[in-house]
Amino acid sequence: MVSLLLRGGLIVTQDPQRRIFLGDILVEAGRIAAIGPVDVSAEEVLDCTGCAILPGLINAHHHVANTLFRGIADDVPLEEMLERTFALDAKLTRRDVQTGALLGCVEMIRSGTTSFFDLFYWEDEVARAVRESGMRGFLSWVTLDEAFTTQRGSPLRNAEQFIVKHRGDALVTPSIGVQGVYVASAETYARAREIADRLGVRMHTHLSETRGEVFNHEAKTGQRPVGWLEKIGFLGDRLTAAHCVWLTLDEVRILAKDRVKVAHCPVSNMKLASGGVAPVPEMLAEGVTVSLGTDSPVSNNGMDMFADMKVAALLHKATRWDARAVPAQAALDMATIEGAKALGVESDLGSIEVGKRADLIAVSLRGPHTTPFYPANVISHLVYSCRGSDVQATVVDGRILMADHVVRSVDEAAVVARAQETARELLEV
Amino acid sequence: MVSLLLRGGLIVTQDPQRRIFLGDILVEAGRIAAIGPVDVSAEEVLDCTGCAILPGLINAHHHVANTLFRGIADDVPLEEMLERTFALDAKLTRRDVQTGALLGCVEMIRSGTTSFFDLFYWEDEVARAVRESGMRGFLSWVTLDEAFTTQRGSPLRNAEQFIVKHRGDALVTPSIGVQGVYVASAETYARAREIADRLGVRMHTHLSETRGEVFNHEAKTGQRPVGWLEKIGFLGDRLTAAHCVWLTLDEVRILAKDRVKVAHCPVSNMKLASGGVAPVPEMLAEGVTVSLGTDSPVSNNGMDMFADMKVAALLHKATRWDARAVPAQAALDMATIEGAKALGVESDLGSIEVGKRADLIAVSLRGPHTTPFYPANVISHLVYSCRGSDVQATVVDGRILMADHVVRSVDEAAVVARAQETARELLEV
Repeated sequence: MVSLLLRGGLIVTQDPQRRIFLGDILVEAGRIAAIGPVDVSAEEVLDCTGCAILPGLINAHHHVANTLFRGIADDVPLEEMLERTFALDAKLTRRDVQTGALLGCVEMIRSGTTSFFDLFYWEDEVARAVRESGMRGFLSWVTLDEAFTTQRGSPLRNAEQFIVKHRGDALVTPSIGVQGVYVASAETYARAREIADRLGVRMHTHLSETRGEVFNHEAKTGQRPVGWLEKIGFLGDRLTAAHCVWLTLDEVRILAKDRVKVAHCPVSNMKLASGGVAPVPEMLAEGVTVSLGTDSPVSNNGMDMFADMKVAALLHKATRWDARAVPAQAALDMATIEGAKALGVESDLGSIEVGKRADLIAVSLRGPHTTPFYPANVISHLVYSCRGSDVQATVVDGRILMADHVVRSVDEAAVVARAQETARELLEV
Repeated sequence: MVSLLLRGGLIVTQDPQRRIFLGDILVEAGRIAAIGPVDVSAEEVLDCTGCAILPGLINAHHHVANTLFRGIADDVPLEEMLERTFALDAKLTRRDVQTGALLGCVEMIRSGTTSFFDLFYWEDEVARAVRESGMRGFLSWVTLDEAFTTQRGSPLRNAEQFIVKHRGDALVTPSIGVQGVYVASAETYARAREIADRLGVRMHTHLSETRGEVFNHEAKTGQRPVGWLEKIGFLGDRLTAAHCVWLTLDEVRILAKDRVKVAHCPVSNMKLASGGVAPVPEMLAEGVTVSLGTDSPVSNNGMDMFADMKVAALLHKATRWDARAVPAQAALDMATIEGAKALGVESDLGSIEVGKRADLIAVSLRGPHTTPFYPANVISHLVYSCRGSDVQATVVDGRILMADHVVRSVDEAAVVARAQETARELLEV
């Protein structure tokens, strides 16, 4: 693995002191070897003049294969969106999943996301796409009761096989998912937890996304989803729960006590009119780790974490009548170091510190829309003014996946063309 | 003026039938001469393969000179933001205003905005920038009571002189503004209206942006701002009112009856935590023209109308618990044809129809983030997936201001460098 020097950028460390300074970053053997003025050279050099250098962004909740279905179900509620999506999912071949996932990986590389936490079936196909693209994938094979699934074979067995096969991979970290309380029994949750414990992997679920989900679960079991999951022993610090919109303060405190990590998905929740707003200020006050996810391209319809950081910062201000709610720094934290915590990898990812894996992005600040810039407004610009298209270079594990806006790891035009053709056949448009 | 052919794009007409079809657009003498398969050639040709061709976007509420102050006052309420902004405004020279305005014009050209409705003093400097950039400016010189102003001379006289000087210009359309009820007496409003009537120009004001504004005005006058402005005769179809967040349904009906045009500014309202949400669904139901504005770069912090269309579509869904609220088409309408109506120029702008002025943009749909695309999801992509950076070409009045992402009308690097230097001096950073 070649050494790499990122030269002359404004380094936004996201370290515990949130230091920002002009400097260089030396990468050796996939890790950050030095930060500051670096005098030695390296085999590869990225000129980062006029750029902020950030830890690569972490998308904490995604269904990347559904990138093929972008725009199929807008301006309709969750139930109708899911109905259309699941009907199309049933037509997907393994190769289609890979095609959609690879398209999504290219979109993420272009817009500065270096890691994502995915929830889907056929994650082995997503894993292929992740490896081909060179980015980092945290992939949860989704399980649910067999009565509800269209997966061939037992979802739990599929998940276990997937995890066993991919454990120990450098860029693909397997884990187990459970779709949600509306399609998973206590037994399914317990068996998923058993597999996660035995194999030492994380868990991933949808939780309290809509009021219908909460209402129906309470009607059926006498308990709201959080209390019910706690009772059956599913909550814990190896669980990442997406959405968490419909929570009481008591439920927030249960998540805090059990150290559950939350993936906040503001754009998806708004688009699907999930109603209410995830109580992020309360979560942060109670010490819950809150990361940021785009959710599926069907309900977003993109995966530009810069856009979603801005919406996260705006949404809580607007609904709390408090312009100080979720300041820019908090939004950037959600997309970086808190995302790493949500994936249990904060010792390796999420900030720029010596010894961490070198997942780094260079974000141009030279555009008219980021002018004027100076160190005191760089966090503001990253959250309120930048777009994914400002990402000039993307590095994962010390390897340059994109430089000067050109993706190096895959043939982008071919990926786009194949996805276009596949989608048109699937959708018959 | 040379003839121009936009060849082979997916034309999103925004005409009354909202037709979308693959074709060419011929431009002659600054106007759209033909739409469809065009066999003749032209002196200039823009290849629009893989692009949607849209009417240029219209930003219906802006303070473009404040682009210099992007990022100076984040995560604070309106009052604190205004305090910081006004303190810096007081330091601005005429040349600084021009510098900031030109920076904003370049940002708008890059992101597909071809017209904007501005509210500021020293609009003659903004007019210089508009002319230099080649875009179209609807510029309102702001008036207010002399007790509150830092303008040299009488604001009303300044506004009148500005209008007289610039009337009849091809690209600059002057008008008169009033800051808002908190700094303008009934007499100031009446005199502004008199000037507008006498000179035949539009009026522009801030209206019911915050609950403090509404509460204080009612405490002072016994009436809420809308009723008070109606009583003093300021409301009418030549008025564009920005924000209109804190309205009762009765007030919405007054705006409808008086044919007042509204500039909805969702990002600014959210960022400043104006509280509540502008009742856009009610406005649309009552037949009020609702256009879209970014507001000042201090409260946004950009002017990417694509980003703001998405937020407009999301915000009302989220707060109404109705995924069908403000669908993608309605958001696109706000940024195009409804914007033209808000400026009283719908016979010339806002849609692609033969005879209208040729303000056109080509938006690339070939990126991974807009894949797959087909005619049935193009409106979705434009609102939910595109970013301003997807704008490949911008044409105003038949003149190419940007092609292949390169701004032709001004030296972008010089504009950016001058703004950077000016801001650093002003802000002492």
